[in-house]
Amino acid sequence: MAGQSTSVLLLVLDLSGIFVFAISGALVGVRKHLDVFGVLVLAGTTGLGGGFLRDVLIDATPPAALVDWRYLLVPVAAGVVTFVFHPTVGRAERVVIVLDAAGLGLFCVTGALKALDHGLGPVPAALMGMVTGIGGGIARDLLAGRVPVILSSELYATPALVGALWAVLAEGAHQPVAVVAIPGVVLCFGLRILALWRGWQAPLPSGSASV
Amino acid sequence: MAGQSTSVLLLVLDLSGIFVFAISGALVGVRKHLDVFGVLVLAGTTGLGGGFLRDVLIDATPPAALVDWRYLLVPVAAGVVTFVFHPTVGRAERVVIVLDAAGLGLFCVTGALKALDHGLGPVPAALMGMVTGIGGGIARDLLAGRVPVILSSELYATPALVGALWAVLAEGAHQPVAVVAIPGVVLCFGLRILALWRGWQAPLPSGSASV
Amino acid sequence: MAGQSTSVLLLVLDLSGIFVFAISGALVGVRKHLDVFGVLVLAGTTGLGGGFLRDVLIDATPPAALVDWRYLLVPVAAGVVTFVFHPTVGRAERVVIVLDAAGLGLFCVTGALKALDHGLGPVPAALMGMVTGIGGGIARDLLAGRVPVILSSELYATPALVGALWAVLAEGAHQPVAVVAIPGVVLCFGLRILALWRGWQAPLPSGSASV
Repeated sequence: MAGQSTSVLLLVLDLSGIFVFAISGALVGVRKHLDVFGVLVLAGTTGLGGGFLRDVLIDATPPAALVDWRYLLVPVAAGVVTFVFHPTVGRAERVVIVLDAAGLGLFCVTGALKALDHGLGPVPAALMGMVTGIGGGIARDLLAGRVPVILSSELYATPALVGALWAVLAEGAHQPVAVVAIPGVVLCFGLRILALWRGWQAPLPSGSASV
Repeated sequence: MAGQSTSVLLLVLDLSGIFVFAISGALVGVRKHLDVFGVLVLAGTTGLGGGFLRDVLIDATPPAALVDWRYLLVPVAAGVVTFVFHPTVGRAERVVIVLDAAGLGLFCVTGALKALDHGLGPVPAALMGMVTGIGGGIARDLLAGRVPVILSSELYATPALVGALWAVLAEGAHQPVAVVAIPGVVLCFGLRILALWRGWQAPLPSGSASV
Repeated sequence: MAGQSTSVLLLVLDLSGIFVFAISGALVGVRKHLDVFGVLVLAGTTGLGGGFLRDVLIDATPPAALVDWRYLLVPVAAGVVTFVFHPTVGRAERVVIVLDAAGLGLFCVTGALKALDHGLGPVPAALMGMVTGIGGGIARDLLAGRVPVILSSELYATPALVGALWAVLAEGAHQPVAVVAIPGVVLCFGLRILALWRGWQAPLPSGSASV
């Protein structure tokens, strides 16, 4: 990847992903009647957890969030906004779900590109994109004592893998960054929303149909 | 940080934190009627988990506990002592809570100073102090199938952040190590105990008051 | 460690461990009626989680699974096979338990040897062998919302530690790799199976006998 505009676009996508994931984490905290600091811990964990996991695995430590103050400011801001305005932010359950899908789309792309940048091959890089996308939500759900959404919901990890694969392939074909990033985000987000809306499910194990 | 006495003081604080956290973990294991090895696993996880998490994030791997045998001996000793003498050690629920507060105070300071030492800025270093303090307890509670204490209890992460901030600021002002460390530990411990004693709570989300 | 045949043997043991652990993870997923992708996520986490944890702690990142495609292919294959043939694979609960014991034996040895290779001392290396063995199962159980088997079952972490200690001692005595690896695997597997079969338990805390 080269160029100033590329890294600016990726930074904006990354911070946006952190913001929407942090809101989804903060809303879980608000619903559990946690105090403001508990809400901030859940916001931070959800927004930064997937990226931390990726950075630790690809040896990009310390993670960006510990070096660049914007990465810390964004989840704090999202947490405070959610805490104060939660009756508006969280009126509908579906707001959280749509934000979550948006965060998934943003993170699967930026995660995959960062992994490529650190020398991983295409398949592991796509997998790291998926991990970046699902890691924050897993941490949020484990802390909140819920069954992780990746295991209990309609297609979740798959859209992230698809979006990450798009980004890896387009990057491998030396496409401009907009072609690498935007369709990847849209693909993941769209698949996830469609799966929710239509109740799509991946194949279940035989014998589960009647459950 | 400079000087032999500085590193000796920090080592003693760090090992003391591991010891008291390991006792709190071992007591959870004893109460769940785990066998002696399960008790040791919980003791080790609680005592070392926060430091492992910090060391992995700030790229200080392998963690001290895998290089210096004293870091392994301490949680094993704490686990064995707790296993044998648990009717004495654990008579009162509040013993665990006070030990936990003491561990929190010790770790938030040593964690923040270690992060500074590895080149992090003041705010991320304070955050790493908090993570060091809360990480072991989170791991203990996840393993034991409990809602993590940081989410369910009175002020928990906040005292750790306050103590860590003190350490970071005093270190930045080139104070002697005793001035850096001791008030930080006392501040965090005192705030946590006061919050428990007085039932202090941080602000709750609007609409939660009646719950 | 030296020689082509050594590294081939260790690779085969490591991939075998991943395969059997991944099957045990996939069976948990099938029993929870997860879809095919959820089953694959559990298979991958169980198969690779312990090794990821070890590699992150001993600073061997990126983990082998992100560099060598065979490490990714194996859990995917195990997951697909389990998903399709689960009525055969999972007929008896004990199949999962025996596979799990086999994975434990394989991982405790390969994990300890890899840690030695990265310069850890004998005791921490044995501990890393244990962590490699128990890490995948812990991740599987946390994701699946179960109490981790290491805490709820007959001797679990101990056989892994014994097998890892054997490997570390034999390697320190410059034994050939077959003498290092095979008795270590057998020792751990045998102890675990014997503990299950005979209902062996490590000492319980005093006062627990009547529970």
